[in-house]
Amino acid sequence: MNFRSDNEVGAHPRIIEAVSRAFASGAAPSYGADDWTHRVEHRLRDLFEKPDLAAFPVLTGTASNGLALACCAPPWGAIYCHPTAHIAAEETNAPEFFTSGARLFRVDGPAGKIDPKKLAEALAQPVYGVVHFPQPAAVSITQATECGTVYAPEEIAAIATSTHRHGLKLHMDGARFANALSFIGCSPAELSWKAGVDVLSFGATKNGAMAAEAVVFFDADLAREFEFRRKRGGHLLSKMRLLSAQLDAYLADSLWLSNAHHANTMARRLVAGLTALKGTQLLYPVDANEIFVVMPAHMHDELQAAGAQYHPWPSDRPGERAFRLVTAFDTNPKDIDRFLSIAKAA
Amino acid sequence: MNFRSDNEVGAHPRIIEAVSRAFASGAAPSYGADDWTHRVEHRLRDLFEKPDLAAFPVLTGTASNGLALACCAPPWGAIYCHPTAHIAAEETNAPEFFTSGARLFRVDGPAGKIDPKKLAEALAQPVYGVVHFPQPAAVSITQATECGTVYAPEEIAAIATSTHRHGLKLHMDGARFANALSFIGCSPAELSWKAGVDVLSFGATKNGAMAAEAVVFFDADLAREFEFRRKRGGHLLSKMRLLSAQLDAYLADSLWLSNAHHANTMARRLVAGLTALKGTQLLYPVDANEIFVVMPAHMHDELQAAGAQYHPWPSDRPGERAFRLVTAFDTNPKDIDRFLSIAKAA
Amino acid sequence: MNFRSDNEVGAHPRIIEAVSRAFASGAAPSYGADDWTHRVEHRLRDLFEKPDLAAFPVLTGTASNGLALACCAPPWGAIYCHPTAHIAAEETNAPEFFTSGARLFRVDGPAGKIDPKKLAEALAQPVYGVVHFPQPAAVSITQATECGTVYAPEEIAAIATSTHRHGLKLHMDGARFANALSFIGCSPAELSWKAGVDVLSFGATKNGAMAAEAVVFFDADLAREFEFRRKRGGHLLSKMRLLSAQLDAYLADSLWLSNAHHANTMARRLVAGLTALKGTQLLYPVDANEIFVVMPAHMHDELQAAGAQYHPWPSDRPGERAFRLVTAFDTNPKDIDRFLSIAKAA
Amino acid sequence: MNFRSDNEVGAHPRIIEAVSRAFASGAAPSYGADDWTHRVEHRLRDLFEKPDLAAFPVLTGTASNGLALACCAPPWGAIYCHPTAHIAAEETNAPEFFTSGARLFRVDGPAGKIDPKKLAEALAQPVYGVVHFPQPAAVSITQATECGTVYAPEEIAAIATSTHRHGLKLHMDGARFANALSFIGCSPAELSWKAGVDVLSFGATKNGAMAAEAVVFFDADLAREFEFRRKRGGHLLSKMRLLSAQLDAYLADSLWLSNAHHANTMARRLVAGLTALKGTQLLYPVDANEIFVVMPAHMHDELQAAGAQYHPWPSDRPGERAFRLVTAFDTNPKDIDRFLSIAKAA
Repeated sequence: MNFRSDNEVGAHPRIIEAVSRAFASGAAPSYGADDWTHRVEHRLRDLFEKPDLAAFPVLTGTASNGLALACCAPPWGAIYCHPTAHIAAEETNAPEFFTSGARLFRVDGPAGKIDPKKLAEALAQPVYGVVHFPQPAAVSITQATECGTVYAPEEIAAIATSTHRHGLKLHMDGARFANALSFIGCSPAELSWKAGVDVLSFGATKNGAMAAEAVVFFDADLAREFEFRRKRGGHLLSKMRLLSAQLDAYLADSLWLSNAHHANTMARRLVAGLTALKGTQLLYPVDANEIFVVMPAHMHDELQAAGAQYHPWPSDRPGERAFRLVTAFDTNPKDIDRFLSIAKAA
Repeated sequence: MNFRSDNEVGAHPRIIEAVSRAFASGAAPSYGADDWTHRVEHRLRDLFEKPDLAAFPVLTGTASNGLALACCAPPWGAIYCHPTAHIAAEETNAPEFFTSGARLFRVDGPAGKIDPKKLAEALAQPVYGVVHFPQPAAVSITQATECGTVYAPEEIAAIATSTHRHGLKLHMDGARFANALSFIGCSPAELSWKAGVDVLSFGATKNGAMAAEAVVFFDADLAREFEFRRKRGGHLLSKMRLLSAQLDAYLADSLWLSNAHHANTMARRLVAGLTALKGTQLLYPVDANEIFVVMPAHMHDELQAAGAQYHPWPSDRPGERAFRLVTAFDTNPKDIDRFLSIAKAA
Repeated sequence: MNFRSDNEVGAHPRIIEAVSRAFASGAAPSYGADDWTHRVEHRLRDLFEKPDLAAFPVLTGTASNGLALACCAPPWGAIYCHPTAHIAAEETNAPEFFTSGARLFRVDGPAGKIDPKKLAEALAQPVYGVVHFPQPAAVSITQATECGTVYAPEEIAAIATSTHRHGLKLHMDGARFANALSFIGCSPAELSWKAGVDVLSFGATKNGAMAAEAVVFFDADLAREFEFRRKRGGHLLSKMRLLSAQLDAYLADSLWLSNAHHANTMARRLVAGLTALKGTQLLYPVDANEIFVVMPAHMHDELQAAGAQYHPWPSDRPGERAFRLVTAFDTNPKDIDRFLSIAKAA
Repeated sequence: MNFRSDNEVGAHPRIIEAVSRAFASGAAPSYGADDWTHRVEHRLRDLFEKPDLAAFPVLTGTASNGLALACCAPPWGAIYCHPTAHIAAEETNAPEFFTSGARLFRVDGPAGKIDPKKLAEALAQPVYGVVHFPQPAAVSITQATECGTVYAPEEIAAIATSTHRHGLKLHMDGARFANALSFIGCSPAELSWKAGVDVLSFGATKNGAMAAEAVVFFDADLAREFEFRRKRGGHLLSKMRLLSAQLDAYLADSLWLSNAHHANTMARRLVAGLTALKGTQLLYPVDANEIFVVMPAHMHDELQAAGAQYHPWPSDRPGERAFRLVTAFDTNPKDIDRFLSIAKAA
């Protein structure tokens, strides 16, 4: 009953198998000139219906976000994001490092989503070209959000409109893009560039890979500095197949979507059971695979005693105890049912 | 007959197997709090006979070098290295990126090794504490060198003496540390901290791993900023086992040494055959697994026609054509013999 | 009737005279080894009753703040300041530039002052040593604040207490330190290091100098990197007397205090007259030389028509129009009186 | 008899007077929107016969060079300069700071000048677009050089040709541009943009100003980031007139040229006398106002005893003692004559 995080689990057997085969196959061109890497880019072009996109494998979400943003914002730039965004809350000044000093500005909104009106107001400030102020350069949204909610295409478009009106670029931190897509049910294109996203951190690590992300530039021109930035950041592998073979298997036969579908389904099963119990309350709608829930103390105690694992979470109301539970590609439905039966008994 | 580079080959079956097992084993603590990572540090402590060393898995040699040097040199620091050093010749300002602006100074010497007298002279300049000059902070040596030669412990000690006399730190880029050790035949401790090395980029990628290095601080106090630097560089994996499982298997049962022994033996077999042929000439002694050799044009043409792969290399003498051949953990002796028989026939 | 800003005015005759004399006096040791620079440091030691402080002339407030903060915060550091602080609101990512990437966190409070309770809460977050979060490193307060208010020594001490409890350094942006001191009436020591300030940007430009500030480290050990940082920032003058002669005259015979006293007195005269008029309202108490005031539209129109100059200022209440008026060392009381008579007539 | 440096002397009376008047004249628009600053730009446009150039006052040569180069080179860029260049020899990693990590490459040549053939060779390396290597971005030449020699327009053009062929920008560190121009006798345009210079650090400090330089972009498009870079570097003054009034007077009535003419004339007078003496030898031709000369020990001792001041200088030949003597805008011919009579007597 481990619901701690989707970044603590193992990897999907098909991804493990792909990496094993890739490394058992002898020599291959180095630094990304190999077949796996080419194939990943082609798969992403097909998937996103964008034959001219440029895509690059990267090790971590932090590097993916940092490198993507550095292609959008100069050192004197301003990057707008939600206060809960991973880049703002948990990446230890990595955006500043990769951009050589750009600054994050927080734009709030309910349930982890930027309020488009607040964003429009923030971007309407008279700072453009004025040397005393950071220059608005990029907006970054997280999909699914850090509250487990999902932006609908039209919500993204509303943000993209003011982003582009002022000449900024729209970045999407898609660490859980698969879970978002599985929830929303549209096409990958509709959830990204067709809604106005310029560059996407396309996550795989949390959804069944070992450690792999892809930075996807829908406007290839925006990528022209990327490879130099990746190299000087120590993120260009000689044996790039380590990342590419993962992504190749991840994208093949819709593995990425079935993984996300499973995780989301497990979350919904857990939510359905939990919310039926007295004293529980959701902090946010559960769109993807993260559940933020208030539980009574005795219920929590019983679950802990039975070995259930999950994180406490800050709650706004005094005395109330909230928790985060995360499902993953490999969550066992029996664990869900056992969890619920303990909770129910409590 | 691929002698292009030891970074183009696959990975050793035991390393592949270790990664597969690690990811098939379900959940594990994230961000390096897992068993594999702990075990790697303990193996390195045993191996280097240094119970208080601090070691950290990293993805690439460029990141390993950059992060290690950033712990040694401030932004206004000077780092001394050989002109052929990877940090100087092939890492695209990564040292400047990780150090926030330190500067490399080149100290020449024969066959890829820093001349200790030239280093002593460079470090004796009256720049210490003078605000107009970069402040000497670190010396970086490469083991084995980019010319395929190996520093003996006493050669390292000679460099370490002037390094430490002036308060600088000694970094070793050990991308091919295993090959060097296999050649020299002393203990890992004797080839590193006992000779004065403060921090080592301990390579595995070129010697049978997929992509993994360890930054090894023999003085743990020097590592106190490392984890923050690694995180903000996007080099902290949530599923750290991807790197640690590789290193764990690499170090187990002396796999790392037997891999290097094989590569070196193959190099020696190739050298023995080549130097017996008329018109060939070595540019440098072949201590490790890299061979820099002048070959007559017709010999090169025949080898190419037969499908042999290796890189051309700059030669100082006009009209002369030099080449680099690299052996690896998986070099097939039959390829060597076939190569030599073609060369001999030519 | 120019009340636009204290950074638009000229310089005090004694400062002009001092610079003229300094440059007419022939050769002098370069890069700060001159008599003027030594004298400035000694004057500051006397003034602050701190014989071991270290002080360095700098060109601008932005450089002064950036260099001071870079001595307090590593690239992965967090710096806490009020949302209105100059470093947060008007210095275009200069703190990020000088610190190589530290991040500002805003702690609100009324009238431009950090609320010490909110600061204590912010600093009590469990982020210390946790690699995912920026590490709290410094608190920066502005004296006088950007709202024209002044921190009393005990208010500073309350902030210093939580700052130091967690091992952070306390920086004071004293662009208008003189105006604050003139208001509060204590000793310079009581308003700085005795209240817990570790490093002070001691402003002179806004108070009668041409362009000169001093970075004053009350803990000289904190200054050990300063000179290298200043040099590589292009802020070390060969003819340092340009800044030092200004500061020397500024500190001589209490010129700095009489200048500030005049500016504050003029502000109080203006406030007394304005607040007596119907329809005016102060946004903040006027402690120093900045007045933030709501005026009726017709009053504003008449003043503008008569040639009065001052800036509009954002107001929270819709329909209300607020303005900022700033007095300076050279404000003519007749201008005040004329301004008030026009306002009264309106 | 102070021949230590042209950066130790005072300032020309007309420049002192201009600064005094500027600051006695009351309020003026801040941050460079003042008349002095506009006038300086117009004077430079006339002087360089380039109505569309963009020029910006800056405090120091180090800032001027760093900011100019940052507009030419990305963080992964390579900047080529002579080993003696100020940016390479004495600015403590300031170029790396301002460029966020670009790297200097040294191209040697006799008497402080880049050898155009060596430069052409360096720029012909096959590194363009290859991610493993710093990308050639700018060439920086020093005029007059740090050896006191002057590039003729055709020498600059030879360097500019290979610079531009490869798409790099040509920067000129003109800390002693006036001395160079006075020697060469052509027009400012011929010595700069007509010969291929893209951006010039136009020095004034060493030639009679207090502390002022101008960054002159002959291609205004290259300047589009300049003002943001200057601001975040803390180099934008609120009372910009401090720098602009100096430059205004410096350029008025050819003061800058008459100052340089005097300094050069004094250098020539000194050289004529010195080279007539037995045992002296020039290290380089004396084109501008710096003299590098070997003197016999007893001559040096007598001069020192008589109070002459100048710096020792490294000499290549063992046993030989070399010295640097610098003349300035205010060098007294009587000091020259006295120096020579002592030297002659020795």
